Amino acid sequence: MSHKYVYLFSEGNGSMRELLGGKGANLAEMTLLGMPVPQGFIVTTEACTRYYSDGEKISDEIIDEIHKNLGYLEEITGKKFGDPENPLLVSVRSGARASMPGMMDTVLNLGINDVVVEGVATLTNNKRFAYDSYRRFIQMFSDVVMGIPKNNFEGMLDAMKEERGVESDTDLSADDLKELVGKFKDFYEKEKGEAFPQDPETQLILTVESVFRSWNNERAIYYRRMNDIPGEWGTAVNVQQMVFGNMGNDSGTGVAFSRDPATGEKELFGEFLINAQGEDVVAGTHTPYHISKLHEIMPEIYKEFTDIAKRLEGHYKDMQDMEFTIEKGKLYMLQTRNGKRTAAAALKIACDLVDEGMIDKKRALLMVDPKQLDAVLHPQFDPNALKAAKVAGTGLAASPGAACGNVVFNAYQAIQEVEKGNKVILVRLETSPEDIEGMHVSEGILTVRGGMTSHAAVVARGMGTCCVSGLGEVIINEEENYFELGGKRVNYGEKISLDGSTGNVYLEAIPTIEAEIAGDFGRFMDWADEFRVLGVRANADTPHDAAQARRFGAEGIGLCRTEHMFFESDRIRLMREMIVSKTEEQRRNALAKLLPLQQQDFEGIYEEMHGLPVTIRFLDPPLHEFLPTAEDDIAQIAGDLGIPVSELKEIISSLHEFNPMLGHRGCRLSVSFPEIAEMQTTAIIQAAISVIKRTGMDVVPEIMIPLVGEVKEFLYVKDVVVSTAEKIIADSGVDVRYSVGTMLEIPRAALTSDTIAKEADFFSFGTNDLTQMVFGFSRDDASKFLGDYYSKNIYESDPFARIDRIGVGSIMKTSVELGREGNPNLKLGICGEHGGDPSSVEFCHMIGLDYVSCSPFRVPIARLAAAQAQINYPRD
Amino acid sequence: MSHKYVYLFSEGNGSMRELLGGKGANLAEMTLLGMPVPQGFIVTTEACTRYYSDGEKISDEIIDEIHKNLGYLEEITGKKFGDPENPLLVSVRSGARASMPGMMDTVLNLGINDVVVEGVATLTNNKRFAYDSYRRFIQMFSDVVMGIPKNNFEGMLDAMKEERGVESDTDLSADDLKELVGKFKDFYEKEKGEAFPQDPETQLILTVESVFRSWNNERAIYYRRMNDIPGEWGTAVNVQQMVFGNMGNDSGTGVAFSRDPATGEKELFGEFLINAQGEDVVAGTHTPYHISKLHEIMPEIYKEFTDIAKRLEGHYKDMQDMEFTIEKGKLYMLQTRNGKRTAAAALKIACDLVDEGMIDKKRALLMVDPKQLDAVLHPQFDPNALKAAKVAGTGLAASPGAACGNVVFNAYQAIQEVEKGNKVILVRLETSPEDIEGMHVSEGILTVRGGMTSHAAVVARGMGTCCVSGLGEVIINEEENYFELGGKRVNYGEKISLDGSTGNVYLEAIPTIEAEIAGDFGRFMDWADEFRVLGVRANADTPHDAAQARRFGAEGIGLCRTEHMFFESDRIRLMREMIVSKTEEQRRNALAKLLPLQQQDFEGIYEEMHGLPVTIRFLDPPLHEFLPTAEDDIAQIAGDLGIPVSELKEIISSLHEFNPMLGHRGCRLSVSFPEIAEMQTTAIIQAAISVIKRTGMDVVPEIMIPLVGEVKEFLYVKDVVVSTAEKIIADSGVDVRYSVGTMLEIPRAALTSDTIAKEADFFSFGTNDLTQMVFGFSRDDASKFLGDYYSKNIYESDPFARIDRIGVGSIMKTSVELGREGNPNLKLGICGEHGGDPSSVEFCHMIGLDYVSCSPFRVPIARLAAAQAQINYPRD
Repeated sequence: MSHKYVYLFSEGNGSMRELLGGKGANLAEMTLLGMPVPQGFIVTTEACTRYYSDGEKISDEIIDEIHKNLGYLEEITGKKFGDPENPLLVSVRSGARASMPGMMDTVLNLGINDVVVEGVATLTNNKRFAYDSYRRFIQMFSDVVMGIPKNNFEGMLDAMKEERGVESDTDLSADDLKELVGKFKDFYEKEKGEAFPQDPETQLILTVESVFRSWNNERAIYYRRMNDIPGEWGTAVNVQQMVFGNMGNDSGTGVAFSRDPATGEKELFGEFLINAQGEDVVAGTHTPYHISKLHEIMPEIYKEFTDIAKRLEGHYKDMQDMEFTIEKGKLYMLQTRNGKRTAAAALKIACDLVDEGMIDKKRALLMVDPKQLDAVLHPQFDPNALKAAKVAGTGLAASPGAACGNVVFNAYQAIQEVEKGNKVILVRLETSPEDIEGMHVSEGILTVRGGMTSHAAVVARGMGTCCVSGLGEVIINEEENYFELGGKRVNYGEKISLDGSTGNVYLEAIPTIEAEIAGDFGRFMDWADEFRVLGVRANADTPHDAAQARRFGAEGIGLCRTEHMFFESDRIRLMREMIVSKTEEQRRNALAKLLPLQQQDFEGIYEEMHGLPVTIRFLDPPLHEFLPTAEDDIAQIAGDLGIPVSELKEIISSLHEFNPMLGHRGCRLSVSFPEIAEMQTTAIIQAAISVIKRTGMDVVPEIMIPLVGEVKEFLYVKDVVVSTAEKIIADSGVDVRYSVGTMLEIPRAALTSDTIAKEADFFSFGTNDLTQMVFGFSRDDASKFLGDYYSKNIYESDPFARIDRIGVGSIMKTSVELGREGNPNLKLGICGEHGGDPSSVEFCHMIGLDYVSCSPFRVPIARLAAAQAQINYPRD
Repeated sequence: MSHKYVYLFSEGNGSMRELLGGKGANLAEMTLLGMPVPQGFIVTTEACTRYYSDGEKISDEIIDEIHKNLGYLEEITGKKFGDPENPLLVSVRSGARASMPGMMDTVLNLGINDVVVEGVATLTNNKRFAYDSYRRFIQMFSDVVMGIPKNNFEGMLDAMKEERGVESDTDLSADDLKELVGKFKDFYEKEKGEAFPQDPETQLILTVESVFRSWNNERAIYYRRMNDIPGEWGTAVNVQQMVFGNMGNDSGTGVAFSRDPATGEKELFGEFLINAQGEDVVAGTHTPYHISKLHEIMPEIYKEFTDIAKRLEGHYKDMQDMEFTIEKGKLYMLQTRNGKRTAAAALKIACDLVDEGMIDKKRALLMVDPKQLDAVLHPQFDPNALKAAKVAGTGLAASPGAACGNVVFNAYQAIQEVEKGNKVILVRLETSPEDIEGMHVSEGILTVRGGMTSHAAVVARGMGTCCVSGLGEVIINEEENYFELGGKRVNYGEKISLDGSTGNVYLEAIPTIEAEIAGDFGRFMDWADEFRVLGVRANADTPHDAAQARRFGAEGIGLCRTEHMFFESDRIRLMREMIVSKTEEQRRNALAKLLPLQQQDFEGIYEEMHGLPVTIRFLDPPLHEFLPTAEDDIAQIAGDLGIPVSELKEIISSLHEFNPMLGHRGCRLSVSFPEIAEMQTTAIIQAAISVIKRTGMDVVPEIMIPLVGEVKEFLYVKDVVVSTAEKIIADSGVDVRYSVGTMLEIPRAALTSDTIAKEADFFSFGTNDLTQMVFGFSRDDASKFLGDYYSKNIYESDPFARIDRIGVGSIMKTSVELGREGNPNLKLGICGEHGGDPSSVEFCHMIGLDYVSCSPFRVPIARLAAAQAQINYPRD
């Protein structure tokens, strides 16, 4: 039997979303429910993938089926394609499995031509309407299908209006429009070298093909990447009988939501136009009414629509987003789908639907996209104040949230102002590790250079601090402490506001509102915790971050990066002293000075975590990252360290690496300089003893050795840890339970996980580095070519944002299996940036990890994603 | 039953080498054969590994066994340990499974003390002998077992000689030596805080422990790494009754080989001393005689020894290296082992033993270490001329072979001189890719800076050109065209000679002899080809290399690196023009100019290969490698290219990468700039057509796409290749069979080999990059810390020299299995530097690859290694 590529609406149902696309399945479902739907047929998503596998050709088999179904549609409607006596006009719309609004192509009024237009005029007794429909069709078809930009046609329309001395399209007469149709067709012929196609079936096939093609236009590819939609899904094409809202004052068109998509309030929300087609809303030629007005104008239609809306919401058990048209006093439903909504609305609707008994908690949990929660986790501008504010510039939305504060230009100023009790916004050309402390105390960060993965962006996201990056129009004058934007000068200490969720910058103060997990949000997150089996921890390097993590529900710290503690101003000097040491003794002296500082940090973190586990990673970056690069800095630091400039330069150059990512870092440092591991162990264990003695609370340090590739390497460092720790513990008489594990980030470690697991208490997947090694490209360098890979459809998503299940995922699975084989009690987690990405969380759940760890602001996202993963793929 | 840790010689045999070590097994075997062997016992290698697993402690169990066997030895010898009436003295020697000459510890005369020495004096009636033995024992024990450097004792000996006014040790009297023993003991007590141990059993246990410990001394670790000996083997300890060659003129000691180890001639070769112990040879106090002299002095002993030698050679079926001692007219055999020999001798002996009917070809093939062949593949100095030459300095032996030529200081000079018909030696501070052409025409290369993996070293080894690197004493004056070494000035054009196998540099001309695969060598290599199933190809980038490869028996080219063609002076300009192009059109113009040059290279290579397959890899390195870095060069090149300096600098900085190894290179270049792949395909296919038309010979191009990590990426580039190639082939009417495959070097490609294999004709493992990714360290950067890893026993060998079977090997195996699953006809090879390493070749054989590819000068090595692999691990 041959494959079925086309379905009548009456042949499908709502569950056939994969085959028919979302729009088609819902049209079929509404047909099934007996609702007033203009009939039509759906060319399936499989036809689309076939189109691509046939080398972007639509096969005869599919064309034949379209013909056949066109025949059925003619029977159903009693109209005939291309017949001037009783013409069938259709709309052609895309419809993928997931909604991709506005990303793909639509053509209306298809089936009209020089002959049919006259028939329409006669039948509707409205020549103006007929020619307006034809004019619109030519314009859309030319633009969408044939690639002739629509501004050409709009230009001709404007010229005609000017010629006639009228302002509005509606002031043009039927003859004007007929003349315009002639001009449009002439222009088309000039452009394409052939006449505008008169055969309706030709029009149809060309349009279907163009919808298929639009699946791979640039904005659709981009949208899919942003929304994790696979390229192989393809789109369906909906061919539906036209109904007209522009046939007089008994006609109209509208859009409505069954609840308020902004707040979630349970009331019909939407607007409509009388005597108009949907596209007129965009044109702004009509002023739409609020949906409640329909009650006054057409009370029966209003009742019919509200009934349908209620029925659809009950049927789909979710808030609906509906399109309708009224043609000569008759209501037609053109579309229904689950409505997009704000995060706040999503949470309220989910809770309300549970309270209304319409859905259970599981279903409620599945209704909210975890990524959406980001919006309710950060401070937001007061919406009322925002309305009055003026956007002065827009950079990259590098780290979400809103912030308002006094402008400062470096870390030192930031710290000073904050000590005075001021809130600050740090404005820099770009940031570097030396700015960390200043970034930490700032409300927001604005940089002139740098993209979404620049230092500022990555660090700010980690801290949950609002950041707008890469706003190139800002000109900073550091010497005189001011910057200019859009011709306006902003001095040191003046107030500005940043929106890291939009990239907007305001040269004025806008009050912000703090985020809080309470009310619907709190209830909802409790449900998530009820269901999930995957633990959620946070990556936190300071007591401040640890406190934030606990507030957001973290069950421990999965990654505490000790090196971040060394970048602070008082410590980096000691760190540098350590690095330039020539003997082990000198190095030990410098380390001894760092010890109390590091110990104090750990004590603060342990206390914030109240007995929850804290995974502490040993020093990871190559040592040269702590040394200066600028000539001035080198001179000053050489002075500080009391060594000649030439000597410091020699040290810096001796630490130079060709590929720092593949260099002397991670546990390799501890192998070369075991005294570093010794100092860090001492700080970790002494801090634990001190907190236990002082507070009596539990302390659960987990010592993580990074970048291990071989069990002997792990053992070498573990031996240093254990012998150091055991001595301190024995001397103290306090019982400290600590464990020693590794960050699993080197492919060789994954491949030899059985032997490593025999010696390790835990593995924590460092998926950033693991992804780099498995793909063989670094995050920093890949940005230069990943754009080509996306546009050529080689990769669909950023493997650094979302775990590549095929490659990285398969080696993780191997590691989990081998690891558990080697040590059935092995604890398994992930602490790469992927730990906060919902798709990656789902994967971690599926391969049986014990927990994920992510930045504090992603903890609620991970909690929800983990609950959804358990609902979709139950694990015990 | 408890484990047996100690064996009497009479309990073992020659097959127990793993347990008893090589020396012990052979002593047992000689005992079994009834040869005159001083008896003793062996503490096994398992006792050594137990010693380490017990935390470097020798367990009571083992100590008990030693005691027990000491008792047996006393029975056998009729002497008693520590009994002055009839004392047993023993030697204690290490003995690993593989011979590690001089790497570990030996103590002689053990069992002597203040009482026993007097007994020895009485029994031998030779007080001088007795105290000399005691003196030697104290010195050796203190040095070897207790870590008191022996120069302390030598100093005392020298002082005593000066005091007595004598020159030689033998001029000291018995009383002198007795006094010296007193001084030695006092010094010992001062150093160690306790008296010199008098209890023979204590002496013995301490010494056994120290032999175990010496298994992990630095030079032993180094030796093992150089010789692929695993650290877990451990060493056995041989405790053997002492016999004395220094008991008068009827005593003596010697060493002999059953054939000449330098030439392989079948005649007894060796030397001996009368009235001496073995260590006296080193001391230089006696002049040894050639072994034939023994015939005159002690004809019966000579006969007995030659009979034993013949019997041993026949028994072991290999040339023997034997130690013997004559005590008062009685011959004792102290050791026999297969003798080390030069490569030439190894080949001759292997062929002779086959001709003599003693062994078959298989056994002959296993007798030669493939790595040894290196010595007979490169030009060598005329041995007679070499004798008279003076070494002026010694650098690193970076690339083997001998060379003599006129000094030049840069690539340009080199080319000019060679065009005049001169042979040249290129002397540089260090080399860079721009020197390639000059390096190619030179006989040898000498650099001041850079190690074994410097550019000069790596490239020279690839070319088979002799290279001495890192000779820091050389001072170059480039402006005035001379260099200085050891105070001697050498001008441009003066003759020097280099030995890349030793690192020696001579400031004079020494004639060289060319290598040739003929005679025994030729016969032997034919046998290797009879047995091996693994194909052997060569990595060759030029017709010259291709010709060399064929001469050495390569069955095709496994890797032709097209970028090397672009570094030549006339081409790099065009390459740079291509790189700075701003539009595709500009880039296509520059590529069009490169096309004929590249095509011409391919034609040359095809012709040299006479129908054998040629695997051509597309452009691989990041583009910035082709751009200059020095200010002068930038200015000049900007001028050449007709663009402002600032613009060129901007381009260079835009191409900067943080981790070039993980950057925009390999097939990523073809994805961004498919026109490069198009040009290279065109050159490959047009060259094939042209050679087929001109010569009628077969041409088998295999197009290799590097750095693939994802099948879609491979497909994208393959599509460019196929559509370009098919069009050219169709237009030409010539039938060109080409295939398209990938260099398998990205872990993700290995993990997804099934899907990639469905589209690829072949995989060639690029184990250099694969090793980098799997270990997460780059070859260049790892040199900074691998030293720590070796000394701490974490890694035993350089994973870039020898395939890491555990990590890299396991992912290769996965790839082979998945690849063959996806495509049963998949051809599998390796083209990383590992392709010429015998251990790696064995591994490639074991996992079922079809061929290995290595530099031309390693082809014979790979052929032999492949034959040995098949003999040891037969495949199909």
